[in-house]
Amino acid sequence: MPINHRIVLDNRPQGEATVNNFKMVELPLPDLKDGEVLVCHHFMSLDPYMRGRMNESKSYAVPQPLGEVMIGGTVGEVVDSRHPKFKAGDQVVGMGGWQEYSVVDANVIGALRKVDTTHVPLSHYLGAVGMPGVTAWYGLVKIINPKAGETVTVSAASGAVGSAYGALAKARGCRVVGIAGGKDKCDYVVNELGFDACIDYKEHKDYLSLSKALREACPNGIDGHFENVGGMVLDAVMLRTNAFARIAVCGMIAGYDGAPLPMANPALILVNRMKIEGFIVSEHMEIWPEALQELGTLVGTGKLRPRESVAQGLAAAPEAFLGLLKGKNFGKQLVKLI
Amino acid sequence: MPINHRIVLDNRPQGEATVNNFKMVELPLPDLKDGEVLVCHHFMSLDPYMRGRMNESKSYAVPQPLGEVMIGGTVGEVVDSRHPKFKAGDQVVGMGGWQEYSVVDANVIGALRKVDTTHVPLSHYLGAVGMPGVTAWYGLVKIINPKAGETVTVSAASGAVGSAYGALAKARGCRVVGIAGGKDKCDYVVNELGFDACIDYKEHKDYLSLSKALREACPNGIDGHFENVGGMVLDAVMLRTNAFARIAVCGMIAGYDGAPLPMANPALILVNRMKIEGFIVSEHMEIWPEALQELGTLVGTGKLRPRESVAQGLAAAPEAFLGLLKGKNFGKQLVKLI
Repeated sequence: MPINHRIVLDNRPQGEATVNNFKMVELPLPDLKDGEVLVCHHFMSLDPYMRGRMNESKSYAVPQPLGEVMIGGTVGEVVDSRHPKFKAGDQVVGMGGWQEYSVVDANVIGALRKVDTTHVPLSHYLGAVGMPGVTAWYGLVKIINPKAGETVTVSAASGAVGSAYGALAKARGCRVVGIAGGKDKCDYVVNELGFDACIDYKEHKDYLSLSKALREACPNGIDGHFENVGGMVLDAVMLRTNAFARIAVCGMIAGYDGAPLPMANPALILVNRMKIEGFIVSEHMEIWPEALQELGTLVGTGKLRPRESVAQGLAAAPEAFLGLLKGKNFGKQLVKLI
Repeated sequence: MPINHRIVLDNRPQGEATVNNFKMVELPLPDLKDGEVLVCHHFMSLDPYMRGRMNESKSYAVPQPLGEVMIGGTVGEVVDSRHPKFKAGDQVVGMGGWQEYSVVDANVIGALRKVDTTHVPLSHYLGAVGMPGVTAWYGLVKIINPKAGETVTVSAASGAVGSAYGALAKARGCRVVGIAGGKDKCDYVVNELGFDACIDYKEHKDYLSLSKALREACPNGIDGHFENVGGMVLDAVMLRTNAFARIAVCGMIAGYDGAPLPMANPALILVNRMKIEGFIVSEHMEIWPEALQELGTLVGTGKLRPRESVAQGLAAAPEAFLGLLKGKNFGKQLVKLI
C-alpha cells in the first residue's frame, strides 16, 4: 500500500495559532472494507472555521481532537472502491481532511459526492460551487433576503464567500459594496467580480473613518450585510444601516484568538430595528442542492470568476492556513496535493 | 373654557436628562371642531422610550419638538364630543400627552379607543393591557416564539413589560427567569408574578458574576431573552444562551444618555447561531387586537396582577420620569391627574 501523509493537531494554540500547533505524520493506508472508497486528494480547502475548532473552548463545532487529522474539505479522484456507486477515476468532493488520501465510508449520506468538471473546474467545488458558495447563498437568500434595488455589503469581499455573495447579489438586482484589505483586492472586487464599489479597510484607522467611506459608497444606506470578519468592519456597517436592516453573521475571525472583540454600539439594533443572525451552513443541508445549482450556473456562464490562492504540497498547509487568518490569501485558499 | 396645564420639552438634555429640560405651561382649551373630542385625562403613562425622543440625534422615532407637549399615552373620560361615536362619560385610551386635557380628532384611526372597565381597571390600559403588554407579547410571541419547556428570561422583570412577559411565558409552559434591581422587586417577581426565579443584578459587580447566577437559575441554558435594558444584563445572558437562542431587543435604557454601551462578546452570535432582533411595537399594529385579547383575559382572570407606581399630579411627572429611567419605580409608572 502507498504511504499516506497527514497533518494532525499536535497541541492547542495559546492565543495566536502557530505552525508549531501542527505536526506531519505518515502512516500506511489500510485495506478497504466493504462500502469504502479510497480517494486521492487533488486539492484541499483551508477555511477560517478551522481556527475555531483548534480551541478547546465552546465553539459552534466539536473541537478538533488532538493527534487526529485536521478536518477539511477535499476534492480528488477515486483510486479504489468497494462501493457499487463509485469506481476508480470518478471525481469526487468530500471531507477528507489535511492528508494525501482518505478512506471514506461511502454509505454515510453526504460523505462523498461525484462532481462534473465539464463546465466547472474541480477545485471550484471547494469554493464557489462548494461550502463557501453555499455559505454566501444562505446568508444572502435566507437571512438578508434582499429586494432588487437594495444595498448589500460584505466583508472579506475578495474571498471565496465574498466573491460568490457579490455575484448572487448582482443577480438579484442589488447594489453590492465590498470591504477588503488592500488596493489590489479592492480593484479585483470591482473590476473582475463586478461589485459596484469596494472599500479598503486598511486605509481607515477606526470604525468611524471606515463608516464615512461607507456613507459615500452606499448613498442610500445599507439594507443587508454579510459579516465574515467582525470588529471594526461590523461596527462601521452598523452605523450606516437603514431601518429593518438584516445582518448575517458567518465569521468573527478577529475574535478567534481569544482577544475580546466588543460591538461598539449595540443600541443600533434597536434604533434601526435590525435583525442579526448567526449561522453555520452545515446545519442547513436542505438548501444545498438549490444553492449549488445556482452557483454552478453562475460559474459555468462566466458570471462568477472566482480567484484562488494555491499553496503547493501538504507541508505548506499550516503556513498557508495562518496566512489565511491574516488575510494574506487572495481568493479561495487551497492546497494542491498532486 | 377650563384652563389646561401641560408639560413641554423646553430644551434637550446634555448627557443625563434633568427636571430643567421640562417646563409647565398653561393655556385655555380651544372650542371643539367637527369630529373632535375633549378628553379629561385620569392617568398618563411614563415610559422609557420618551427619553430617546428627547434627543435630537437619530433614534427610532421622530424627536420630540421643543416647546410642544411631551408625547405619551393617556386614559380618561370624554367631557365633550362632536364625534358621533363618542359621548360624554365614555372611558377612552389615547396618546394625549403630558397634560390635563386633550382635544382629539377622533376621525384619525387609532387616535381614541373606548375601553371596558368591568374586569380591567382603567389604568391597566396604559400597562398590562396597553402598549407595554403588547410590547411583551410581540417580543415573546413573534421574535422568541418559545416552545413549552424552554427557558426564557427578561430584564426589568418587575416593570410593566416584564410582568406581562412573565404571565405570557408561563401560559406557554416556559421556565421564566427575571432580572430586576433589588430584593423587593425580585421577591415580587417570584411571589406575586409567578416567575420561576429572579436575579438581583445589583448584587453583581460585573457581567461574569451575573452570568454565574444565571447559570444556577437556568440549569438548561437560555433559549429566549427579552432585553429592556442592555449593557451588563445582555452580556451576562448571552454567555448562557443555548444554540439557536432568540433575543428580542426592546430597550437599551442605559445607552440613552449617550455613554458608549458596547456588547462584550458579539462572537457568541455566531458561536450559538443566535438571532437578535430589535423592534418597536407601534410598527406592528396588526398584532395588537390578538395581543390585547390575551392580555385582557390574563388580567381579568387574575393570572396577571400588575403593580403600579403612581405619582400624584401633572407637576410630579418630570421627577417620576427621571426616577423611572433609574429604576426607582416599582411596576408600571403612572401619573394620576385627577
